[in-house]
Amino acid sequence: MIMLDRGIVERLVRDALSKQLEAPQARGRPEEPAGSVPKLVVNVSARHAHVTQEDLERLFGKGHQLKPFKWLYQDGFFAAEETVTVIGPRQRIIPNVRILGPCRDHSQIELAFTDAVALGLDLPVRKSGDHRDSPGAWMMGPAGMIRLERGVIRHERHVHMGPTDCDHYGVKDGGRLHLRIKSDCGAVLEDLLVRMAPASKLEVHIDTDEGNAVNYPRATKFELFK
Amino acid sequence: MIMLDRGIVERLVRDALSKQLEAPQARGRPEEPAGSVPKLVVNVSARHAHVTQEDLERLFGKGHQLKPFKWLYQDGFFAAEETVTVIGPRQRIIPNVRILGPCRDHSQIELAFTDAVALGLDLPVRKSGDHRDSPGAWMMGPAGMIRLERGVIRHERHVHMGPTDCDHYGVKDGGRLHLRIKSDCGAVLEDLLVRMAPASKLEVHIDTDEGNAVNYPRATKFELFK
Repeated sequence: MIMLDRGIVERLVRDALSKQLEAPQARGRPEEPAGSVPKLVVNVSARHAHVTQEDLERLFGKGHQLKPFKWLYQDGFFAAEETVTVIGPRQRIIPNVRILGPCRDHSQIELAFTDAVALGLDLPVRKSGDHRDSPGAWMMGPAGMIRLERGVIRHERHVHMGPTDCDHYGVKDGGRLHLRIKSDCGAVLEDLLVRMAPASKLEVHIDTDEGNAVNYPRATKFELFK
Repeated sequence: MIMLDRGIVERLVRDALSKQLEAPQARGRPEEPAGSVPKLVVNVSARHAHVTQEDLERLFGKGHQLKPFKWLYQDGFFAAEETVTVIGPRQRIIPNVRILGPCRDHSQIELAFTDAVALGLDLPVRKSGDHRDSPGAWMMGPAGMIRLERGVIRHERHVHMGPTDCDHYGVKDGGRLHLRIKSDCGAVLEDLLVRMAPASKLEVHIDTDEGNAVNYPRATKFELFK
């Protein structure tokens, strides 16, 4: 598992480099005047966890606060310095699962199917916070271990957007859009969930399985349509 | 790596079970009278190797012959009992990579991007036999180890078909078709390569990354279109 983890980290680094070095235009068009096509950003979310403040303190100690490690594209959200080890059935673990901040009102672990298979879990595809029929797992931190009764999910791919973007695409919160990814193994990911919030920037989140399937690091174009 | 390998095997077993138990109609329509829509089968190819008879003997000993372990959907082709260990750069290995038979006139290793990342290789997407710009690797068998100078590829997803299927879809060998996979995270895989051969049965091959991206085991419908 450590080898897989290093590999995914490497791929993410490669993604980040390709974003900056190879084809910046492929990741999102440059800012354009108001009224024109919104700037579309597509990012791959690697496996990660969300925790409540209470669970954070059980894992890292009384009064512990998440420390931002890297700010994410959506304002106010960050990858934290803190990571946990996720323990599944059959003595299998995935170490170094990063916590995203800030803390939430529910703890949740988001894995790709490849991760879930490695852990021995059968996951439902769910939007954040919907834990119906989802398995649990143990989370281990330096100060303690907690049992998540449920909340391990494959996070349904989705697109964050604000009200202006919703108007542009003619959708509402909870609506659906398709994403075309052009590459040497391109695809249309169908029925992406629209998640509208007033402060959100237009950004699609796919997971590492989807990113690997479509050769995300070498994608030449992204297109969001109804 | 062994954990990942076991996981993929488990997923394949789960796939096979779901094929038989859950939704046989999802894997391909039942046989229909001649002249109607052809029966479409979609299968996930896990990582595997092809070898020349010469390389086989270097790996398994003088005069060795591949032993069929499981017959594949295409007549005459089989997963062999023989497996090799693939060794990439940086002391990383993937054990138990199955050889598919019969022997070919070139040796080749086909990996998903997830495997390639785990091995530390950057792969091109190529059709079988096209080894342009592809990296090499070491292959280890019980009788010896060989260096493949190149030929490690992500096999481009493709659809096998015979002349009658080509007529039905209005394509020729080397043409392109799209595959829609309906599931709770469905997608249209665009521009599948058409590989026509007189004796081929209609069958799409996608890899484990694509299978995981679209939740193949729970797919409810496959549709091939131009």
